[in-house]
Amino acid sequence: MTDQMKCITLAARPEGAPKDSDFALESRDVPTPGEGEVLVRVHYMSLDPYMRGRMDDAKSYADPVPIGGIMEGGGAGEVLASNDPAFKPGDKVFGMFGWATHGVQPAKMLRKLPDGLPITTSLGVLGMPGFTGWYGLTEIGKPKKGETLVVAAATGPVGSMVGQIAKARGLRTVAIAGGADKCKLATETFGFDAALDHRAYDDARALRAALTEAAPDGIDIYFENVGGKVFEAVLPLMNRFGRIPVCGMIAGYNTGALGGTPGEGPDRFPVFWRNLLVKHLTATGFIISNHWNQYPAFLNEVAPLVASGKIAYVEDIAEGIENAPRAFMGLLEGKNVGKQIVKLI
Amino acid sequence: MTDQMKCITLAARPEGAPKDSDFALESRDVPTPGEGEVLVRVHYMSLDPYMRGRMDDAKSYADPVPIGGIMEGGGAGEVLASNDPAFKPGDKVFGMFGWATHGVQPAKMLRKLPDGLPITTSLGVLGMPGFTGWYGLTEIGKPKKGETLVVAAATGPVGSMVGQIAKARGLRTVAIAGGADKCKLATETFGFDAALDHRAYDDARALRAALTEAAPDGIDIYFENVGGKVFEAVLPLMNRFGRIPVCGMIAGYNTGALGGTPGEGPDRFPVFWRNLLVKHLTATGFIISNHWNQYPAFLNEVAPLVASGKIAYVEDIAEGIENAPRAFMGLLEGKNVGKQIVKLI
Repeated sequence: MTDQMKCITLAARPEGAPKDSDFALESRDVPTPGEGEVLVRVHYMSLDPYMRGRMDDAKSYADPVPIGGIMEGGGAGEVLASNDPAFKPGDKVFGMFGWATHGVQPAKMLRKLPDGLPITTSLGVLGMPGFTGWYGLTEIGKPKKGETLVVAAATGPVGSMVGQIAKARGLRTVAIAGGADKCKLATETFGFDAALDHRAYDDARALRAALTEAAPDGIDIYFENVGGKVFEAVLPLMNRFGRIPVCGMIAGYNTGALGGTPGEGPDRFPVFWRNLLVKHLTATGFIISNHWNQYPAFLNEVAPLVASGKIAYVEDIAEGIENAPRAFMGLLEGKNVGKQIVKLI
Repeated sequence: MTDQMKCITLAARPEGAPKDSDFALESRDVPTPGEGEVLVRVHYMSLDPYMRGRMDDAKSYADPVPIGGIMEGGGAGEVLASNDPAFKPGDKVFGMFGWATHGVQPAKMLRKLPDGLPITTSLGVLGMPGFTGWYGLTEIGKPKKGETLVVAAATGPVGSMVGQIAKARGLRTVAIAGGADKCKLATETFGFDAALDHRAYDDARALRAALTEAAPDGIDIYFENVGGKVFEAVLPLMNRFGRIPVCGMIAGYNTGALGGTPGEGPDRFPVFWRNLLVKHLTATGFIISNHWNQYPAFLNEVAPLVASGKIAYVEDIAEGIENAPRAFMGLLEGKNVGKQIVKLI
């Protein structure tokens, strides 16, 4: 009898927030690696906001997961069998195995993990989210000493990277996070100069008033990763020549309305446009998967800082693949604290 | 008796498109220059879309013209009297004299015009509009050989500069203009590779279909100076890493809705945002008056090209200050061909 693996498949396309019945836990045969392929036992899998987009049938920058297909995602684990000389059993690797306990990938799609750091770091602080924060801040945000940065979801793996790199480069850093505990984490663990709990403010106007105090010299870089109320609050406070790196926006993933709910905010295009024009703002979107060529530069700079503890990271680890859907739903609601991971073994 | 001058004042704030009764023709005493000031007889005054914004009471990047105040604007003329050693009677100068036959300005606010070029060039091709096109294209658009550029209002002084500089740098240039005559002017006089008459297309979708043929390799730079239907047509055709320099938008000036009419276009913020994100677009707004420090660099590069005929320009010259309001109304409707100027003497 062939060995069995477990996986989570897409049972139905969610309307709005995903629910239990949109996912199915299945058992399948462990796949056999072909020529040049590698079989991996996944120890930890990653949960990330972009996965919500893959559940929709809408045209996007990546193909949707088909109904009945394994949910997409990255994982870190150990090579069980290899048909490529570059890998041998026991090697620790990262690859896109999906929400599954085992996976086969072409060797060239795998990344060998360095010794000396927990393999979970390849999913968060030194993986796609950390790289997203680093790339967006440094390549698009172009931070300069003495400037002020604002980032939301600031205790997540993207926001906390953005804040720590910005702080190290001499910027004033302002966190926006959900709840007093996350605000404390932002300042105490990630070194933000100030942190605001967006739940404590009824609307964008109230949040903006608080931001005015937290960022008394205005905002030079707004790292946009949530949209909605935060963006609306921030926009009028941007300084001339401000930069807005735009990565995915979790607030919009569940509604289909990237950029927040329609209304009086900057999603009223003219408001955004007028600010852009009058203040010489630059907004640049990016999809991190188009920039892997700069990933080695990121690792060269940041991996030593993580190893030495100069860059902090926080992980939120759920146990068991059967709990992945619930952990994912929680992630979309901001219930996790730090990088959401699922331990599979 | 003191000498008299003529001027056009703002009689009423227009609702929508300005009409005759929003302006008043007045006679006033010619002002006397004080210490360090210069009196100028204006030979040619400039009409520009930004002036529509000054007629509104809305908060903007510049103060509105007060009711009863002289309409704002630049002009070129001859020094009549000078209380500053830098200028002497007979000098040809450019300054912000407003819609008026005479004006007094501090010497430091005046620019002496070079010999060898008609003074009208200081209002258009070598003035603020030409500088706007050059700055936006080169500093923000960052054109690269082999790319494709699209610009609307392509026979105006901004668009024609954008097109010609882009062409000289090896780009494919696509003009959008209003009417067959302007399209012919765009290709024959300004060297655009293709020209589309936006009036020939019922909606953004139809215009987009035509653009797909005119820009078969997609669009790398869209110089945004009109908003509305054109922007809506262009956005989905932008290539990855495309750039969108955003200067004033004439389509919105009369409606108060910068960025065009509400509806299904990119003024639906999420549509714009999704394009920005997925295609790594960069949109940067600018107000040219914040960049005069680069004006000498512009003149150094472009004035010789104008003098030698390598950069073409077209002027539309109305006669007499009393005709300035009508010429301005025509400008806002696109009735002028080339840079709109009013000859005062």
